Amino acid sequence: MMTPLIITAAVDGAETMREHNPNVPYTPEEIAQEAVRCREAGASMVHVHGREDDGTPTQARDVFEQILNKIRERSDILVQFSTGGAVWMSVEERIEALDLRPDMATLTTGTVNFGEDVFMNSLPMIRQIAERLQEFDITPEIEIFDTGMVDTAMRLVKEGLLEEPLHFDFVLGVPGGMGGRPENLEFLVDMIPEGSTWSVAGIGRHELPLAYKAIDMGGHVRVGLEDNIFVEKGVLAKGSWELVEKVVEYAEEQGREIATPEVAKEILGVG
Amino acid sequence: MMTPLIITAAVDGAETMREHNPNVPYTPEEIAQEAVRCREAGASMVHVHGREDDGTPTQARDVFEQILNKIRERSDILVQFSTGGAVWMSVEERIEALDLRPDMATLTTGTVNFGEDVFMNSLPMIRQIAERLQEFDITPEIEIFDTGMVDTAMRLVKEGLLEEPLHFDFVLGVPGGMGGRPENLEFLVDMIPEGSTWSVAGIGRHELPLAYKAIDMGGHVRVGLEDNIFVEKGVLAKGSWELVEKVVEYAEEQGREIATPEVAKEILGVG
Repeated sequence: MMTPLIITAAVDGAETMREHNPNVPYTPEEIAQEAVRCREAGASMVHVHGREDDGTPTQARDVFEQILNKIRERSDILVQFSTGGAVWMSVEERIEALDLRPDMATLTTGTVNFGEDVFMNSLPMIRQIAERLQEFDITPEIEIFDTGMVDTAMRLVKEGLLEEPLHFDFVLGVPGGMGGRPENLEFLVDMIPEGSTWSVAGIGRHELPLAYKAIDMGGHVRVGLEDNIFVEKGVLAKGSWELVEKVVEYAEEQGREIATPEVAKEILGVG
Repeated sequence: MMTPLIITAAVDGAETMREHNPNVPYTPEEIAQEAVRCREAGASMVHVHGREDDGTPTQARDVFEQILNKIRERSDILVQFSTGGAVWMSVEERIEALDLRPDMATLTTGTVNFGEDVFMNSLPMIRQIAERLQEFDITPEIEIFDTGMVDTAMRLVKEGLLEEPLHFDFVLGVPGGMGGRPENLEFLVDMIPEGSTWSVAGIGRHELPLAYKAIDMGGHVRVGLEDNIFVEKGVLAKGSWELVEKVVEYAEEQGREIATPEVAKEILGVG
């Protein structure tokens, strides 16, 4: 039997604005509400970025503190902080909130074009983030945008900055990163060491097809408005929870059990 | 029968210093001499970076002018300029010499970690280089360090900045880029559109194994001290020409014909 499915809801991100989909949560209150809805729909983890009240991306510690407290007050959903922030942020800014000890935080192990911008993660920056994660004993989700980033993660293991087993998230379909073809996912899964866990975050129209493929392959899934605003062609999602529902529906059809936050913690070695 | 094999000699680069291998050419005169030796050994193209007389990388127009003139005075070998330069150079600096109209020039279609550094090629920078190549009617060699860069090249085709058929060079084994596993080469070759041509530049210990694999697969090959300083484990190469000789030897064993510069021009659509 396959391991229970962990669904992560990426509810806001740094790029999706209300102009794209009016259901993107901005304030800590809105983000917490959306996290609760996603938990009810079947997600066991929520991936959050900080936002100012007008939607401007921020990694400010007090914003993350509000988000974390508001979510924890009303839900057992695991909370994962982004350390990616937005492409123009300094690394110090991106890791400012980690002392709040979220359940997980992301660690992107390379630099990649991100549309017209560059998502900068030089090796010294990666090491700095990894050290901070170790300092606060936060389980990393290794964000992979292309194949070289897997090798860099393994290099960090050798340097003692990451510890196996690793958990990878393959973000596929960013313009500049690895594309969203199903073969790409298969290739990455073949690359990672045995005993690793992995999820896929397909961008845009790749989100649900790659999620379904990951479910078939025994991997885990990230969906949400950060990555994709549509629930089907031309139809805006009512919220990230609606995308979570689609994933749950498919998993149930395939007989794949959904992980609770408690089970997800065990699978991911959190806490 | 397979298409004749094009061997490109990457004789100097921006990173390999005489401290690594005393046979790295620095001055235009030395680079030209090395190009002639590589041509005699079987290379039909030479890939050059500029160097100050003390070995410091430069993309200065007058240095490239001397290199180009000195090579053309004494050899029919095709001359390919790097537009990569060194990781700390501005894009303007990197393309300064293109009005000299070398036979080819490289175009890297993405940003990637390069050891401790970042090799920056944002989409706006890539467009700027591609426009300059079009302006001077120089055939591009698309340098690929990871899979997303292939997709970006295809995007530039759609934008009218590149024209099919494309010629790719897969640079495999840079720490931060795609690794040097043979599966990686196969994966990339499967990705590119039919009618494209390609070569492989394996870095370090991957150089000769990947070159031999490319010969078997019908692709082309880049070797030289820029990418690898050893001719076998622990034995420094006497020059890039010695690595070219190894490749020729293997190709002859496999019954693969070696392309002259004239034939290479035809295959690559140069001139």
